Amino acid sequence: MANKPSIVKGTRDFGPIEMAKRNYILNTIREVYELFGFQQIETPAQETLQTLMGKYGEEGDKLLFKILNSGDFLSKTTDPELAERNALHLASKFCEKGLRYDLTVPFARYVVMHREELQLPFKRYQVQPVWRADRPQKGRYREFYQFDGDVVGSDSLLNEVELMLIEDEVFSRLGVRVEIKINNRKILTGIAEVIGAADKIVDITVAIDKLDKIGIDSVNAELRQDGLTDEQIQKLQPIILLQGSNEEKLDTIAEVLRDSATGQKGVEELRYILTLLNSQTSALKSEFTFDLTLARGLNYYTGAIFEVKALDTPMGSISGGGRYDNLTGIFGMPGLSGVGISFGVDRIYDVLDALQLYPENSLRTSQLLFINFGEQETAYCLPLVGKARQAGIRTEMYPDATKMKKQMAYANAKQIPFVALAGESEMQAGKLTLKDMATGEQTLMTIDELIGRLKE
Amino acid sequence: MANKPSIVKGTRDFGPIEMAKRNYILNTIREVYELFGFQQIETPAQETLQTLMGKYGEEGDKLLFKILNSGDFLSKTTDPELAERNALHLASKFCEKGLRYDLTVPFARYVVMHREELQLPFKRYQVQPVWRADRPQKGRYREFYQFDGDVVGSDSLLNEVELMLIEDEVFSRLGVRVEIKINNRKILTGIAEVIGAADKIVDITVAIDKLDKIGIDSVNAELRQDGLTDEQIQKLQPIILLQGSNEEKLDTIAEVLRDSATGQKGVEELRYILTLLNSQTSALKSEFTFDLTLARGLNYYTGAIFEVKALDTPMGSISGGGRYDNLTGIFGMPGLSGVGISFGVDRIYDVLDALQLYPENSLRTSQLLFINFGEQETAYCLPLVGKARQAGIRTEMYPDATKMKKQMAYANAKQIPFVALAGESEMQAGKLTLKDMATGEQTLMTIDELIGRLKE
Repeated sequence: MANKPSIVKGTRDFGPIEMAKRNYILNTIREVYELFGFQQIETPAQETLQTLMGKYGEEGDKLLFKILNSGDFLSKTTDPELAERNALHLASKFCEKGLRYDLTVPFARYVVMHREELQLPFKRYQVQPVWRADRPQKGRYREFYQFDGDVVGSDSLLNEVELMLIEDEVFSRLGVRVEIKINNRKILTGIAEVIGAADKIVDITVAIDKLDKIGIDSVNAELRQDGLTDEQIQKLQPIILLQGSNEEKLDTIAEVLRDSATGQKGVEELRYILTLLNSQTSALKSEFTFDLTLARGLNYYTGAIFEVKALDTPMGSISGGGRYDNLTGIFGMPGLSGVGISFGVDRIYDVLDALQLYPENSLRTSQLLFINFGEQETAYCLPLVGKARQAGIRTEMYPDATKMKKQMAYANAKQIPFVALAGESEMQAGKLTLKDMATGEQTLMTIDELIGRLKE
Repeated sequence: MANKPSIVKGTRDFGPIEMAKRNYILNTIREVYELFGFQQIETPAQETLQTLMGKYGEEGDKLLFKILNSGDFLSKTTDPELAERNALHLASKFCEKGLRYDLTVPFARYVVMHREELQLPFKRYQVQPVWRADRPQKGRYREFYQFDGDVVGSDSLLNEVELMLIEDEVFSRLGVRVEIKINNRKILTGIAEVIGAADKIVDITVAIDKLDKIGIDSVNAELRQDGLTDEQIQKLQPIILLQGSNEEKLDTIAEVLRDSATGQKGVEELRYILTLLNSQTSALKSEFTFDLTLARGLNYYTGAIFEVKALDTPMGSISGGGRYDNLTGIFGMPGLSGVGISFGVDRIYDVLDALQLYPENSLRTSQLLFINFGEQETAYCLPLVGKARQAGIRTEMYPDATKMKKQMAYANAKQIPFVALAGESEMQAGKLTLKDMATGEQTLMTIDELIGRLKE
């Protein structure tokens, strides 16, 4: 019967220290979202496959975890169908539900199903795990948390500004210096329009992005390989060599895109966002950079595009987002614009680890351990334990009267900073001895004195 | 393409107000656990079927959600096997993973897999959803949260006492008056031993439990129907008619069980727990009752058994737990004793709703909304919004310059208590008008005065 247990490939357990660190990150993000008027929702882990399928491309459909129907899951399948052994077809017969792949599609479903009760604009945050049947590898898991914030039902660029302020505030609170890159899908569309190569925009941004590494000649060679004409490449030169402050770059782009209404709109939007950001009273902690090569999520973003990178440690994007104009159209509710960001909790965790940015008190371990000397001493200590807790001090009493050494090892392992001892002499004096685990110092005192000391 | 979306049967969305209330409950429980030295862990939603199967009885196995293997899930199945259409067998071929059914089995797996790094006794809490393919009905869901706390690696009854103090503190903080019922499996075993009917103990407790409703004669009749002899029923009379204080009941039981070593041990354990509970400095808020008919989890509890009921509203058990002596034995690690409790979050939610016990500030909505009058006013307001947030006031600015009525409706719907308005005259004066949404009162003031007012 007894078998060695194992954990599902690509998933993780989180122990007490990891959880404390994760909670520190999640609580920080949560507090900032709430400071900005965002409210939390949760959706179920399971969604119907009808909701999930076709939303993440063909590759995404393959990465969905599907849940076998309960009971006789074969009842809807004929013998010839079974004999065909078509895995994709049979999966659709055997399964009606899957695990959520992200928080965006469930949110869209939520908005459509609850539209009557929602007061628009609706500002929601959501922090839940998502599941993807990806090939597990370092830093890529089959279960991981996303922490999304979105505003739906408002076209105002003020929402973009607020989201950028949230990014700035979150990483400032976490102590992580970041660069926040901003782009606008309409600028990219404008470029494609102006040079007449709408289908090449991704190739173009990929090539431009390599400028620093490979130089202008190689970039041009790559664009030629991508199928662009010499004339098109010529037109792209000021864009490839774009330099200077955000304002200077925007001026150059505005000039290049003077014949594209969409492109001009993009420049105008970006200019407005950056102007409002700079009008804040408090200095922004983050660097905001207009980056033309930022082209994430091109298949759904329609306006602003954001990406956040840590400055002091190499790590991919740790947050990102953008404006999408038709979140709920897939569910028959067109015309609802949204803009959102998502925090990569796992990567932020790694950044804080690498830069040792976790504050000491984020561990939330016990502050005080009472040593157990036996039944009589326990009876003496328990009311004192209660008093310490009433004062808000995280306190435990070691449950067994085992060797002192073992109890001290417990305090050390849990990083409990203070230990209280009460033997015969302390009991007679109505006091106890407080040991400071860092200095080793021991002091006889009353419980009230102890509480005063620990509350300092 | 566009289809009306639906939610998976038996699952729920939680909107902002529900989430705020749930978070109030979860944070209260979390704080108390941490005050008592418990630390959080999390385990993945998916476990191997090897870990899950056979742990919850045959019925439980049927209620497991199984996850279809990725890719060609048919590859391990032969044609004859397929043709047999044996759903149970094929499920075991198609699926290697399932969704967790409770938090106890994953915790046992966790302890076994991490035993090298764990400092025993290990006090953990865990709050995560679990999934059961139950028939959905009122109050029973296919996805729901459990909030467990357990101590493993210590036989000390002090752990039972601490868990009872946690129950007392949690419900006292939530403002719910409760009765905490305690029993001991060893007492039940003792009774079975003394009357010589080991297999009848569940029938006996069920019959005794009906005393108040049906009277002693009917209870005796039911016991006779259950197959007990007149002599056995005679011996049970003092137990059926058990009355008085906890101490009186324990005295009676001790007398009846004088020939059962196990029974005596149970009485002794219970007496010790109740004595320590009564030795607390602060008066306990809850009623602790020795209830002989409490027989939940008889198939795994080996010592103390607990159950908590709300006194002021009809609702089943809202928390419960007990001592189990072999948590990790199923995974090849025998001899590790544990004791734990679990909070029924959904039921506690309903109790607080019924008794209207949610504090006003638990909603965590914005405290201040800036009305949007247009671009110029927005530029004036944004730095003030930033100042309010710096002061810790949850603040938002309405993103669109729409009709005043619509913006006020937004403030009302989100229950935002204060609204700030800044038009031409306010801008000239370098001030703003604060409107108290409850009284309708409007006052012209500086942002610093506003912050002072809201921080009062």
